[in-house]
Amino acid sequence: MAFFPEVAGRVVYEGPSSRNPFAFKRYDASKVVAGKTMAEHLRFAVCYWHTFRGTGVDPFGAGTMDRPWRSAQETMDAAFEFFSKLGVGFWCFHDYDIAPEQSSFSESCKQLEEMVAYAKRKQSETGVKLLWGTANLFSNPRYQAGAATNPDPHVFAYAAAQVRHALDATHELGGGGYVFWGGREGYDTLWNTDMQREREQFAKFLWMAVEYAHKSGFKGQFYIEPKPKEPTTHQYDSEAAACLNFLREFGLMDHLKLNLETNHATLAGHSMRHELQVARLAGALGSIDANRGDELIGWDTDQFPTNLYLTTEIMLEVLAMGGFTTGGLNFDAKVRRQSHETSDLFHAHIGGMDAFALGLEVAAAMHEDGRIQQMLNERYAQRVEFKTLEECEAYVQQHGEPTRRSGRQEQLENIVNEVLLSL
Amino acid sequence: MAFFPEVAGRVVYEGPSSRNPFAFKRYDASKVVAGKTMAEHLRFAVCYWHTFRGTGVDPFGAGTMDRPWRSAQETMDAAFEFFSKLGVGFWCFHDYDIAPEQSSFSESCKQLEEMVAYAKRKQSETGVKLLWGTANLFSNPRYQAGAATNPDPHVFAYAAAQVRHALDATHELGGGGYVFWGGREGYDTLWNTDMQREREQFAKFLWMAVEYAHKSGFKGQFYIEPKPKEPTTHQYDSEAAACLNFLREFGLMDHLKLNLETNHATLAGHSMRHELQVARLAGALGSIDANRGDELIGWDTDQFPTNLYLTTEIMLEVLAMGGFTTGGLNFDAKVRRQSHETSDLFHAHIGGMDAFALGLEVAAAMHEDGRIQQMLNERYAQRVEFKTLEECEAYVQQHGEPTRRSGRQEQLENIVNEVLLSL
Amino acid sequence: MAFFPEVAGRVVYEGPSSRNPFAFKRYDASKVVAGKTMAEHLRFAVCYWHTFRGTGVDPFGAGTMDRPWRSAQETMDAAFEFFSKLGVGFWCFHDYDIAPEQSSFSESCKQLEEMVAYAKRKQSETGVKLLWGTANLFSNPRYQAGAATNPDPHVFAYAAAQVRHALDATHELGGGGYVFWGGREGYDTLWNTDMQREREQFAKFLWMAVEYAHKSGFKGQFYIEPKPKEPTTHQYDSEAAACLNFLREFGLMDHLKLNLETNHATLAGHSMRHELQVARLAGALGSIDANRGDELIGWDTDQFPTNLYLTTEIMLEVLAMGGFTTGGLNFDAKVRRQSHETSDLFHAHIGGMDAFALGLEVAAAMHEDGRIQQMLNERYAQRVEFKTLEECEAYVQQHGEPTRRSGRQEQLENIVNEVLLSL
Amino acid sequence: MAFFPEVAGRVVYEGPSSRNPFAFKRYDASKVVAGKTMAEHLRFAVCYWHTFRGTGVDPFGAGTMDRPWRSAQETMDAAFEFFSKLGVGFWCFHDYDIAPEQSSFSESCKQLEEMVAYAKRKQSETGVKLLWGTANLFSNPRYQAGAATNPDPHVFAYAAAQVRHALDATHELGGGGYVFWGGREGYDTLWNTDMQREREQFAKFLWMAVEYAHKSGFKGQFYIEPKPKEPTTHQYDSEAAACLNFLREFGLMDHLKLNLETNHATLAGHSMRHELQVARLAGALGSIDANRGDELIGWDTDQFPTNLYLTTEIMLEVLAMGGFTTGGLNFDAKVRRQSHETSDLFHAHIGGMDAFALGLEVAAAMHEDGRIQQMLNERYAQRVEFKTLEECEAYVQQHGEPTRRSGRQEQLENIVNEVLLSL
Repeated sequence: MAFFPEVAGRVVYEGPSSRNPFAFKRYDASKVVAGKTMAEHLRFAVCYWHTFRGTGVDPFGAGTMDRPWRSAQETMDAAFEFFSKLGVGFWCFHDYDIAPEQSSFSESCKQLEEMVAYAKRKQSETGVKLLWGTANLFSNPRYQAGAATNPDPHVFAYAAAQVRHALDATHELGGGGYVFWGGREGYDTLWNTDMQREREQFAKFLWMAVEYAHKSGFKGQFYIEPKPKEPTTHQYDSEAAACLNFLREFGLMDHLKLNLETNHATLAGHSMRHELQVARLAGALGSIDANRGDELIGWDTDQFPTNLYLTTEIMLEVLAMGGFTTGGLNFDAKVRRQSHETSDLFHAHIGGMDAFALGLEVAAAMHEDGRIQQMLNERYAQRVEFKTLEECEAYVQQHGEPTRRSGRQEQLENIVNEVLLSL
Repeated sequence: MAFFPEVAGRVVYEGPSSRNPFAFKRYDASKVVAGKTMAEHLRFAVCYWHTFRGTGVDPFGAGTMDRPWRSAQETMDAAFEFFSKLGVGFWCFHDYDIAPEQSSFSESCKQLEEMVAYAKRKQSETGVKLLWGTANLFSNPRYQAGAATNPDPHVFAYAAAQVRHALDATHELGGGGYVFWGGREGYDTLWNTDMQREREQFAKFLWMAVEYAHKSGFKGQFYIEPKPKEPTTHQYDSEAAACLNFLREFGLMDHLKLNLETNHATLAGHSMRHELQVARLAGALGSIDANRGDELIGWDTDQFPTNLYLTTEIMLEVLAMGGFTTGGLNFDAKVRRQSHETSDLFHAHIGGMDAFALGLEVAAAMHEDGRIQQMLNERYAQRVEFKTLEECEAYVQQHGEPTRRSGRQEQLENIVNEVLLSL
Repeated sequence: MAFFPEVAGRVVYEGPSSRNPFAFKRYDASKVVAGKTMAEHLRFAVCYWHTFRGTGVDPFGAGTMDRPWRSAQETMDAAFEFFSKLGVGFWCFHDYDIAPEQSSFSESCKQLEEMVAYAKRKQSETGVKLLWGTANLFSNPRYQAGAATNPDPHVFAYAAAQVRHALDATHELGGGGYVFWGGREGYDTLWNTDMQREREQFAKFLWMAVEYAHKSGFKGQFYIEPKPKEPTTHQYDSEAAACLNFLREFGLMDHLKLNLETNHATLAGHSMRHELQVARLAGALGSIDANRGDELIGWDTDQFPTNLYLTTEIMLEVLAMGGFTTGGLNFDAKVRRQSHETSDLFHAHIGGMDAFALGLEVAAAMHEDGRIQQMLNERYAQRVEFKTLEECEAYVQQHGEPTRRSGRQEQLENIVNEVLLSL
Repeated sequence: MAFFPEVAGRVVYEGPSSRNPFAFKRYDASKVVAGKTMAEHLRFAVCYWHTFRGTGVDPFGAGTMDRPWRSAQETMDAAFEFFSKLGVGFWCFHDYDIAPEQSSFSESCKQLEEMVAYAKRKQSETGVKLLWGTANLFSNPRYQAGAATNPDPHVFAYAAAQVRHALDATHELGGGGYVFWGGREGYDTLWNTDMQREREQFAKFLWMAVEYAHKSGFKGQFYIEPKPKEPTTHQYDSEAAACLNFLREFGLMDHLKLNLETNHATLAGHSMRHELQVARLAGALGSIDANRGDELIGWDTDQFPTNLYLTTEIMLEVLAMGGFTTGGLNFDAKVRRQSHETSDLFHAHIGGMDAFALGLEVAAAMHEDGRIQQMLNERYAQRVEFKTLEECEAYVQQHGEPTRRSGRQEQLENIVNEVLLSL
């Protein structure tokens, strides 16, 4: 059965002048840019939760999405049909996305195993790979006060047991990584919270996962995903720097990298480029949740990324780290509540992929152009060689007042537009 | 004397492939787009305050700008040299920008008259026109508790007297309009404020200006300029809708339009397009302060507008109202504090002008393309003809549940990128 | 059956030193303050939606609330038991709160009628009155693109039909008012929106309701309730001033007042006191949704109001307008998702009622104290008597520079604390 | 000469019922609370910059403050007169606050030495001590692109030389600490920034200061002060966790603690209590800049702290760390621009001191009351003893679903009000 009749075969590249809404205008998978194909650079993944399980519910209204699939198997059939038609190389999931939670833990595990077996077959049939897996440790009421950070060890145990199976599932499916997003790992109010205790529990939890992976032979990369708030008032993994502080404090820097999301960055008051750069410079940039927020709105809108400045800046950072290794660009984005038809899923992903393809080309063209890099090189041409305050003072006594140089921000911004429009 | 040696003659259009930082890549003044030249559409103005009187002071540091002009006359010479070299048609000023305040009101007036006479000569020599004038009713300590809204009638009188002369100056220079920006017309705390009294005073003040213009023969358009806060905690003209409410309440709708600024819109939590549209639909869109803010920052950064999505959206609204009449695009923007050289003023304005030229072309291309308009036409094809609740109920009883239609936001956003990249 | 066994009889006033969590420490219903009893001043209402139908669902998790009631009748039994035990005088509801929507419009109407009859009996048994009613025009998918502002007249008709019955229900129950909260009356993106058309439809819709009330004999007060965004990107009734602008534009000022909510005010970037004052000064302050937000969070948290500065400022405005007429303090607030027990509903409401009782006493004590009012009187002692700009200038020429006066904000803030702590 | 004639002798404690605006109502220096006097607990400091050098300049207006002192010596006379009359134990300064920068580095150093000698005499005469000193590395245009993080080593050297002398000055005056606030240590745009290089330079700079202190015998505590932005777009020391990450990365955790400011916390999107707790739990809570922001405003308003919830939460954290050692409560706050009289400085500081005295008493009363602590103890009664994921799973298999407990946020908030109002 075809769940997506609006696209008969596969979404193809038709070039910038095409007016076919179901064709790529910029994303040409096999086109070589900066030494690799677009597909190799971009490593697009579709997320299971928003795209196949999302209903369009919001805090003031019921679900709106018209989705012809019902059972877990049908859902997976739809998913792999979509992956294939769209031509992405990867997917991502939470345990209970693919295998809805059952009435007991054992039954949930059994259901998960069955769906993993089914997914494995689908992967093999389509060639689509698992970018990363994860466990949903935030939806069930038992996690209302946190999972790893819950004051009740019983809940901690439940979350840990769930992670064990989600890790096994990820392993079985050859996943390149495993993500920890701590949606409930924070607090609603400090009046009822022992922050130290909760952070220690969280570190213990991560260490257990690291050790389990070692024993079980899972070689994928672990990631934590920063978000400052929502659903809680404060989440401990609030932003890149706070995550790095946590990893350093608990000796976890060698074991986890970051999975960064644009909308989470802006909710934390940072540009996505800032967050990417903070992670990259610490050797901790792992993977990217490719979406965007609305900076005039204070919650997670998870919109599809179509802003070309954003995709350019992201791809500059990806190129700067030498490209993804285990990570990729996962569309952790959802169609608007009014975009309730399955065709909207194509519009959304096609737009995102085209925007990233263009962003990649602009980033590569900036390297080619070289003006911005040259201006940086000139600005940072000299290094600080002084060793002591006294040495510094001696230098000042001798040389007096330094000469100022313009930061040239406006000129740089003009160059960005020039290069962007050259493509 | 040439204050801007970095540009010998005039900034010229060299096209997209030029790498000359002192040339236009997109703004070709005489190019015809949608029936008019770019110059006619865009009506660029340079602001006197930031560009010629701005020092680079910020709340934590002294001025940084290297500006070779000193006296009021030199400053004006520099200004008109810059206007001419840049090739803009308009300028804007506050009274004390061109004629610094003196030790008494009479002397300030005299100084203003002299500088107006000088400006008049400069205008005539260069052909540059005055888009609008205004009075600085916020810098002097006497206005610490407001100008028109000051609890002390003496201060009200001072502000009114100043406006009289600023209006005369604008009139004398053939200004197309006169702006009221109420930087201190608000409150720092409600604990010491009588809001009703202050709003009534403000209305009285505007009425006096309207009546004075009638008597004096000034035919220019009056504008008020919304801004929600900064320097005060709350400014009465907080946003477009609040301004319209005020104008309606005090019978001023026929006498004032709005001068809208991007950074003020976003500080109020609105997109610039929203504010433009609110004003336009009320017949009150007058002129535009063309800048941009940083949406992750909570104060007025007054950056130069280089974001092509922004310039496109602004030009769509300008086209939708049939183009400017008295208004224009005034660069109420300042170079960054590190961009302290005069050449940065060129980079900044050239980038802004190119961005608006491109925005105009994209807006025109969208009309040409027609897809977005067609989708809107389809969405709003039917009109509500019901007259009563009972009639509505009868219809529902007969026809049952309505059919939903996708809002197609993602597809629309894709089309925006497609058109933008087609240029 | 008792749904709230944790409170055997009624919550009583035990005074400030009580440690009984189920007793009032500040709210003494019959205590006279400023000429009226606390109950008369405060007119507390409990909202049906959050308190009896709220599940604790959030965007990342399922419902958590332990609620022993199941059917519509049981829910209403629980509600009136709670109202009575708490000792509030009023309640508020949406049509589908009390009578869940059925599979056809007719059946929904029938269900509503039955539940209204049941509620009427309950009201009569308990003496609890209806503060206001409303219709839920935002949860059903049919309203995904708006109700009154939907591009499809069929949806408009559906919403209108629903309002007719909600109005009848409110009328039948003797409701003091009827609220329009336009949760979907806005846009997600301007790219697919005809704002003018939508605003006109909205005005038409309100006029139909006004006319229907006239015909049907409903004498209650109509209110609109501002909120800037959430669930949409922009709601037309964004804040008090924008609502007033709308009402003035469409001639509705005599027919609607505002129902203001603290969390909506702060989402719009305003203090609650600002919004209350804007409405009050326009003669349009009707009723209050008593909650609070978290100003560091960008969505509607709808927390219970316990901040004593907030309750003081609200009660100052209520006293300044001479007290409520049809309106009151409706707790449009929800217990936190972790507060899943029915006892938490008591903690929440008791805390809110005590906070408002204290706020009332502080507000009254400020009047008694008189210092703040005296400082205001001195500040605004003189009125502007000038008629023209010329007259103003003549005054300035004669009197020169005005004398500045301190705004005394710090001293005023100290007085606030002194009065607050005196109680 | 007396610069503050409005207070003849000393501000004294007159108790809650006093209406003397120049008396304390809550702060009774020698009153013993929780085992120490209020003066010992609170360690109030007055800051030199805002209070004696602040002019009331804002981005849109000139200075307004009436300050009768002129020369550096007069300013210091005024300062110590104020400290003494107010009865605070400490002060804080930047090098160029007390000794305005001269035309050469040598002359600036000489001027600083003279003023330090003068201050030393004043300290000895009055008994007022130096809480901490610092250098102004942000106001001079040479620092437009940063001080320690400036791309130009010459500027780095200048800043280092300045720090050397500021450290010597602090040492000479017996200062308890030395603060690094990196107002320009960040970026305006990533387009012209090498973040890694700049962060490394910053670490090198701090290490030089640490080593210099070791050599010179300065035993005071070093602090860094987080702030996310303003004046720059992003400051590297953006918040507590980001600072800790930086200190850990560069091995500086043993050498620096944090100086936390309320308004900086809220600009970073955190509550002050959050920031304090993050620092305290890392053993890095050093000192506090006691002010408050306006959470609806996006810049640093540096208002005086009068919110009793805020002062209570701060004092809870101070008590939780066992009280200050080298640190204290420095009023890094400024009177509003309209509060231009010297008497407003008294109102402001008296209000802040009273608010903290009350906050201390509330915090102590909460310990006494014990309810909140008991609820926390119950919530965290059990510890996680599991060692592996497998062990966790075994537990879940055996025990099934955990039991949820209410978080009781509403009840806790009620208790806060009850205790606050008991004083």
